[in-house]
Amino acid sequence: MKHLLSIADLTRSDLDELLDLAASFLSVTQRETPKVPALRGRTVVSLFFEDSTRTRLSFETAAKRLSADVMVFSVATSSVKKGEGLRDTVATIAAMGIDAVVVRHAAAGAPRRITEWIDASIVNAGDGRHQHPTQALLDAFTITQHRGRDLSGMRVAIVGDVRNSRVARSDVQALSMLGAEVTLVAPPTLLPETLEGWPCSSAVDLDPLLPDLDAVMLLRIQHERDASTRFPSLREYTARYGLTEARARRLRPDALIMHPGPMNRGVEIAAAVADGPQSVIGEQVTNGVAARMAVLWKLLGAGGDVV
Amino acid sequence: MKHLLSIADLTRSDLDELLDLAASFLSVTQRETPKVPALRGRTVVSLFFEDSTRTRLSFETAAKRLSADVMVFSVATSSVKKGEGLRDTVATIAAMGIDAVVVRHAAAGAPRRITEWIDASIVNAGDGRHQHPTQALLDAFTITQHRGRDLSGMRVAIVGDVRNSRVARSDVQALSMLGAEVTLVAPPTLLPETLEGWPCSSAVDLDPLLPDLDAVMLLRIQHERDASTRFPSLREYTARYGLTEARARRLRPDALIMHPGPMNRGVEIAAAVADGPQSVIGEQVTNGVAARMAVLWKLLGAGGDVV
Amino acid sequence: MKHLLSIADLTRSDLDELLDLAASFLSVTQRETPKVPALRGRTVVSLFFEDSTRTRLSFETAAKRLSADVMVFSVATSSVKKGEGLRDTVATIAAMGIDAVVVRHAAAGAPRRITEWIDASIVNAGDGRHQHPTQALLDAFTITQHRGRDLSGMRVAIVGDVRNSRVARSDVQALSMLGAEVTLVAPPTLLPETLEGWPCSSAVDLDPLLPDLDAVMLLRIQHERDASTRFPSLREYTARYGLTEARARRLRPDALIMHPGPMNRGVEIAAAVADGPQSVIGEQVTNGVAARMAVLWKLLGAGGDVV
Repeated sequence: MKHLLSIADLTRSDLDELLDLAASFLSVTQRETPKVPALRGRTVVSLFFEDSTRTRLSFETAAKRLSADVMVFSVATSSVKKGEGLRDTVATIAAMGIDAVVVRHAAAGAPRRITEWIDASIVNAGDGRHQHPTQALLDAFTITQHRGRDLSGMRVAIVGDVRNSRVARSDVQALSMLGAEVTLVAPPTLLPETLEGWPCSSAVDLDPLLPDLDAVMLLRIQHERDASTRFPSLREYTARYGLTEARARRLRPDALIMHPGPMNRGVEIAAAVADGPQSVIGEQVTNGVAARMAVLWKLLGAGGDVV
Repeated sequence: MKHLLSIADLTRSDLDELLDLAASFLSVTQRETPKVPALRGRTVVSLFFEDSTRTRLSFETAAKRLSADVMVFSVATSSVKKGEGLRDTVATIAAMGIDAVVVRHAAAGAPRRITEWIDASIVNAGDGRHQHPTQALLDAFTITQHRGRDLSGMRVAIVGDVRNSRVARSDVQALSMLGAEVTLVAPPTLLPETLEGWPCSSAVDLDPLLPDLDAVMLLRIQHERDASTRFPSLREYTARYGLTEARARRLRPDALIMHPGPMNRGVEIAAAVADGPQSVIGEQVTNGVAARMAVLWKLLGAGGDVV
Repeated sequence: MKHLLSIADLTRSDLDELLDLAASFLSVTQRETPKVPALRGRTVVSLFFEDSTRTRLSFETAAKRLSADVMVFSVATSSVKKGEGLRDTVATIAAMGIDAVVVRHAAAGAPRRITEWIDASIVNAGDGRHQHPTQALLDAFTITQHRGRDLSGMRVAIVGDVRNSRVARSDVQALSMLGAEVTLVAPPTLLPETLEGWPCSSAVDLDPLLPDLDAVMLLRIQHERDASTRFPSLREYTARYGLTEARARRLRPDALIMHPGPMNRGVEIAAAVADGPQSVIGEQVTNGVAARMAVLWKLLGAGGDVV
């Protein structure tokens, strides 16, 4: 495995290996000194064409815990503003002798194009509405930590702005590969136009599903995209799809409540629910570092010891 | 000691310990290789909601000299812009498994609120008009390096925009704890409305005090706050409160001239005075790194060796 | 050698030593673990008053491969915005105890001024239209890697916006010191008003020179300066001075094609030429890291082993 571009590229055994690695690295991050020399001398560049401090910081933390050097290519102050194209920007970074590039880009497919141009390993940290594979990995890892590796027969709902969500698309692929039955829940205007290629079902009503769910993931209403124009009002969205305290009480006591963050508290999730005992939202962030250590180690460190 | 939020939280013995540590780390920073492994594997995040390259760089230098990993949470490009609240931002950082957060925030009390939400050590790097404890520590350290630890009977004037100054408030507490007699000097409009809780006196005229001072600290006129609307003109301010060359000549030859920076040369301090033999303004910056090493080591490294 | 401000400050033997060091460090960067402990404990600050992610990243990579700590003084968020002068900004950085400052500034001579104010080593990373010595070093290094150290009788053309180019000025000095005959090629409006002090010749027509060149370096048309107002149109510029595929075919098969980046593909160089077999543009970037390692090691590490 040289790149991680899409969950769809992974076999079940790739996925199992990454989840095993994530578990090993989670235990590393809980040590007194949460750092291993595995990637000493390797250089990882983060190249983010869209803002995302959360994801960037998670990757940087992961890389530093593996003792890699981390460099930030800040697009805001880069040659990109002088009209340099993506290809030359990437070629320049590659020529400096780096080992991996973590890329976020507004255009679906940009990370895959980059693999055609340079030799380094490419990790997709989100491309348009297409894929966000490390998010899917950390979400799958979080569920399996609570339910075991075999998710056969488990029911997971992903609720919200599914149409715009690379998280939903990636999560569906990862969770269904592990056996889960995933249902996308959203107003019709926020569902994909077709479910072809999505190994899951969809629903317009959340309430009937609640008592049977093993996990429910609320997606962020993305004000900065066009989501909020696709339903009458935030108040109405919350009334039908928000995980309010009343709805949360109808979940099984062991159902997991998840959110990729950043949350709009009071919109897609009530504050008390986000902070309640069934929420694993903080675990998701913690597991994100472990999952990204697993990915970077798999791509760059193969052959050496994990710890 | 888990956090450093305010000088008011310190006992005299805490303060003495931090000053002793600062002296040890100052000698570390003067070695050929000014770096110790004390905090290897620890992660320090700087979370600055207000611009301050000087203070941020000083903390980063301190952390790196202790071999900690440093991460910068750049608010300008963060989820904060997507409407995420302070609590969720901080919770996310904490869930990544970091050990300390260095916080600057425009709201007084923000660092203390954060301690209620997360487990990491919090260092207040300036909150509103409230506190800037590491600045007070480095100022006290700078004076004690020249005058010894016991400042009983020493006279220190803090001159300028005292009302808006978290530096003044913190310095008064630290210096009075060591025995110094501090006088705040400013036009009435820039003095606090009451001195209740400030262990110091105040004066409207600087000139009569000059011959008796052991140290004079000039504060920056903060154009970006409302200070400059509170007196007729910069020229008039300088005429009455600026440390001009004429005024500097009336100081004792061993009186220390201090400024927390950045300076408005020609306003609160004359350029020749800032660069003159009695100025310890450069020492303050150098000592700032040592003082911040002391704080980070005290909060995160206790139990290990200093060097 | 304490600073690197201008190629004009170097003797032939300095230049030879730096080129030898660059060769050593190039081999370091090609190792499995491309990192040496030579500058462990040293701190390098990058202080860029003009945007340049490429150059900044190259210096940072170089410093990290030498195990130095790197700090970025981001001018956009600095005290400079609060009105602090260059001298105080630099003095503050110096007082934190750093070893080298890599400076880019719009004003010619700014790096030399800084050496008068502080003790640290200063590396000029580009000052106005004056000098960019590490670019000249990497360009000279790239040519000597292909042609050997003695460039006597070799013909190099530097084509484009020569008048505004600190790269051209620095390259002419370095290449002529090694024996090359350099010709500046540009429309009269983009040539220097006088060649006094430039050890080279100039020409207005590129075509007659092509068959005899050992290397041709295309400069970037700097839209952000006033270059594009000095000739009728980009199309016309390309027609007379662009290294089109037709012109490239008239070069000798072993002539080197160079560009300091970022390129305007289709303007000063055709895309197919930039990516063709005679292009060493990617090598220039790779060699840039090695050349900057050489400079930092020479200034900060002398006495220790290279590897």
